Amino acid sequence: MEQLSDVGLIGLGVMGENLALNMERNGRRVSVWNRTVPGVEEGVAERFVEGRAAGKQILGFSDLSEFVASLNRPRIIMMMVRAGDAVDELIDQVSPFLAEGDVLIDGGNSDYMDTGRRVAACRARGLLFVGAGVSGGAEGALRGASIMPGGAKEAWPLIRPLLQDMAAKAADGTPCCDWMGPDGAGHFVKMVHNGIEYGDMQLIAETYFLLKRAGGMDNERMSRLFGRWNEGRLKSYLVEITSDILAYKEADGGYLVDRILDVAGQKGTGQWSVKNALELGESFGLIAEAVFQRNISTQKELRVEAARVYASRLEKEPYASFSADEVEQTLFASKLVAYAQGFDLLSRASEQFGWNLDLAMIARMWRGGCIIRSAFLDELARAYEAGGGRGNLMLFPAFSTQVREALPAWRRVVATAVCEGVAVPAFASALNYFHSLTTDFLPANLIQAQRDYFGAHTFERTDGERGKFYHEEWVSLQ
Amino acid sequence: MEQLSDVGLIGLGVMGENLALNMERNGRRVSVWNRTVPGVEEGVAERFVEGRAAGKQILGFSDLSEFVASLNRPRIIMMMVRAGDAVDELIDQVSPFLAEGDVLIDGGNSDYMDTGRRVAACRARGLLFVGAGVSGGAEGALRGASIMPGGAKEAWPLIRPLLQDMAAKAADGTPCCDWMGPDGAGHFVKMVHNGIEYGDMQLIAETYFLLKRAGGMDNERMSRLFGRWNEGRLKSYLVEITSDILAYKEADGGYLVDRILDVAGQKGTGQWSVKNALELGESFGLIAEAVFQRNISTQKELRVEAARVYASRLEKEPYASFSADEVEQTLFASKLVAYAQGFDLLSRASEQFGWNLDLAMIARMWRGGCIIRSAFLDELARAYEAGGGRGNLMLFPAFSTQVREALPAWRRVVATAVCEGVAVPAFASALNYFHSLTTDFLPANLIQAQRDYFGAHTFERTDGERGKFYHEEWVSLQ
Repeated sequence: MEQLSDVGLIGLGVMGENLALNMERNGRRVSVWNRTVPGVEEGVAERFVEGRAAGKQILGFSDLSEFVASLNRPRIIMMMVRAGDAVDELIDQVSPFLAEGDVLIDGGNSDYMDTGRRVAACRARGLLFVGAGVSGGAEGALRGASIMPGGAKEAWPLIRPLLQDMAAKAADGTPCCDWMGPDGAGHFVKMVHNGIEYGDMQLIAETYFLLKRAGGMDNERMSRLFGRWNEGRLKSYLVEITSDILAYKEADGGYLVDRILDVAGQKGTGQWSVKNALELGESFGLIAEAVFQRNISTQKELRVEAARVYASRLEKEPYASFSADEVEQTLFASKLVAYAQGFDLLSRASEQFGWNLDLAMIARMWRGGCIIRSAFLDELARAYEAGGGRGNLMLFPAFSTQVREALPAWRRVVATAVCEGVAVPAFASALNYFHSLTTDFLPANLIQAQRDYFGAHTFERTDGERGKFYHEEWVSLQ
Repeated sequence: MEQLSDVGLIGLGVMGENLALNMERNGRRVSVWNRTVPGVEEGVAERFVEGRAAGKQILGFSDLSEFVASLNRPRIIMMMVRAGDAVDELIDQVSPFLAEGDVLIDGGNSDYMDTGRRVAACRARGLLFVGAGVSGGAEGALRGASIMPGGAKEAWPLIRPLLQDMAAKAADGTPCCDWMGPDGAGHFVKMVHNGIEYGDMQLIAETYFLLKRAGGMDNERMSRLFGRWNEGRLKSYLVEITSDILAYKEADGGYLVDRILDVAGQKGTGQWSVKNALELGESFGLIAEAVFQRNISTQKELRVEAARVYASRLEKEPYASFSADEVEQTLFASKLVAYAQGFDLLSRASEQFGWNLDLAMIARMWRGGCIIRSAFLDELARAYEAGGGRGNLMLFPAFSTQVREALPAWRRVVATAVCEGVAVPAFASALNYFHSLTTDFLPANLIQAQRDYFGAHTFERTDGERGKFYHEEWVSLQ
């Protein structure tokens, strides 16, 4: 009798193929199956097995029951299909062939609420369902990603060796994969990762914009500057590739970045994180502005027309009234806010849903494999450990010193950009978040007065107990 | 035989009672019914009829079938119950007593998607369902609100005289109620109204904060200043009540506003508008910041701690490096952005859902009764009419002249606040929105390059056709 496979993989898009190759490279025998749509998707598994997987311990199946029968028990099956109904349909299709204690892993970008529901529904059928966010793109899937599993905890001992082998390793050798928590915790953490990614990218874009438009810096100099920053506290994958991108020339010697249209796309996970922040009552302005800037970038014709109406093309010579160091301070302090907002959302969800998320562990797990990997996450993990794993990171001693130092530059850079008409919505939102956070008395008293005036919504008093609400008959004034 | 009633009302909260009294004042015979929960809600209708409605043409019923039988046909029934399942339950409860062509109006703050679903479901039962947003609070419900009906269009001729009689009247006598469109259009328009309301309130709060913290102005002077502004282009209900609030003293002569805790509440409709803006791909930063500021206001203990860590209590004497006129310019220009974002969301929804919303009509309808009523809406309605009813209002000649004039002050006030550490998230977001809108080339080219670099997401080229996407093998660089 033939040897059975260690793991099954369903869904042979580029991510699925690469994950299968990654598993095999790590010593697993892999079975793969792809849904067959006559005339559209035929022979996908066969082509993969004869192509990229040729000569490897990877078996392709066109029959689902044979695919399942080829797996060791308890079976471990990873699904890489489009998030949404396709996942439910696949679960229904595969379940009849499975036995109690088998494990299904959804590695797609599913909504964490769907994942929570699926964990419960599968448990009722005796199956262990795991929602695992995977970050790192096609490259990460192949060479080592950041993997964030959550759901049916009993599955963890069964899948841990596999997932940690497949994961990227941080500089200290730790695999970038650990157990997040129950329900949809894994997919929630992935969603927040993507929100932070939107923030990081927008902050870098504003940095570039400022250096270029207000600072008059050329691509070569900016590339070198990002390269230099990549040797300091800003060291990260996104800063590194920005340096590459800025120096990248086409065959005719022209810079490609200057020929790319300023219309940004998105796949929706940044937006999700903002919607969840709204639902959980968080303050999430920086990441929201990053999403809104992608939206307004798509309105190219309107912007060209608006620039004409306001004659706002850059008319004067660029000037540099701030130094590169001041911009670095601004970028670093703003980046702290992106992480403060993201980690606060994790913290709030953890309380709300009883997930008991380990924020230090999450920071450590993101140090490798994923898009936001950076030296900073190492520092963040240590700060969370030192702080008992909770709290707003702007208040951690490791960061508050740096923020205090950066503050004059941060303010001056934002003020200068504002005066010169260079849009810096994320820098400004980050700074205003910091100012609101550090203000012991905000003007919300006036908002409460207005709400009570027009809608009798009541208010608390500074000279009253918290939780005791008052109403005033304001109109008697008139 | 007794005369039948013209209209029925279900749900005797303060809004429901006041609407019934409003209907009766406008010459309608009204029947009222309230759900009875033994031991909790008993005899509600009876108490109302014997109390506030005593001597009026208002009949109370405890039996639902008798309530329905007391109405002229086609029956018109307005429901004022909590949004959500209660509305569906009520529809199921009432429907069996109704006949083809009868009209149900939901006057609560329902989700527009729910309303769209209910319009279709009721139509299948032969009933005409209308979702009508009502703004103006308890006072407006009694004396004249802004009413935004949408749904089953055949109902409009039947309910128009009633709703327009009940509505507030603008200065020119036009009723603040008109037909919005099909499906959930009425509730969508109400939701956007509330989003703009959040924006308007936050802008006024930041104005107050700046005048007080950076300008060192006392309550009396601020009250007079808002009073003066209320005679100019900022004339509006919210500016008017702000002037009242700032001058309002308690019995001991102390200002009440100074004794209200800076922790703002919310009921969720501002948040909804932001979530819908995200779903429809709009840029909605100002209104989002208004919601986020309410969220961060609730973190009072954290803010007090953060203020201590950063020693950010106002230490120095207040100064005034900007004039009251510059602040007025800032408030007005930022207010334009709140409306630009709100009306753009309406416009996008109209296209997306095929509602054919009349933006000029919506502006006119908001001139009276509702919380955001203002002189500005008159100007806005005229501008939309002049502009053919479409387009971003920042580009309308009526406003672009004022924005151009306000721009130096707007920039200087935001820059000053930023430098002095006074949080002005909505002013700053508004200004950055304006700067992004009027920038013909945003740094989204770099974001597209990054997305293509790490995820092969492709990009468009400035020297290529729109809609044609390219991918580059960036890593070959290394």
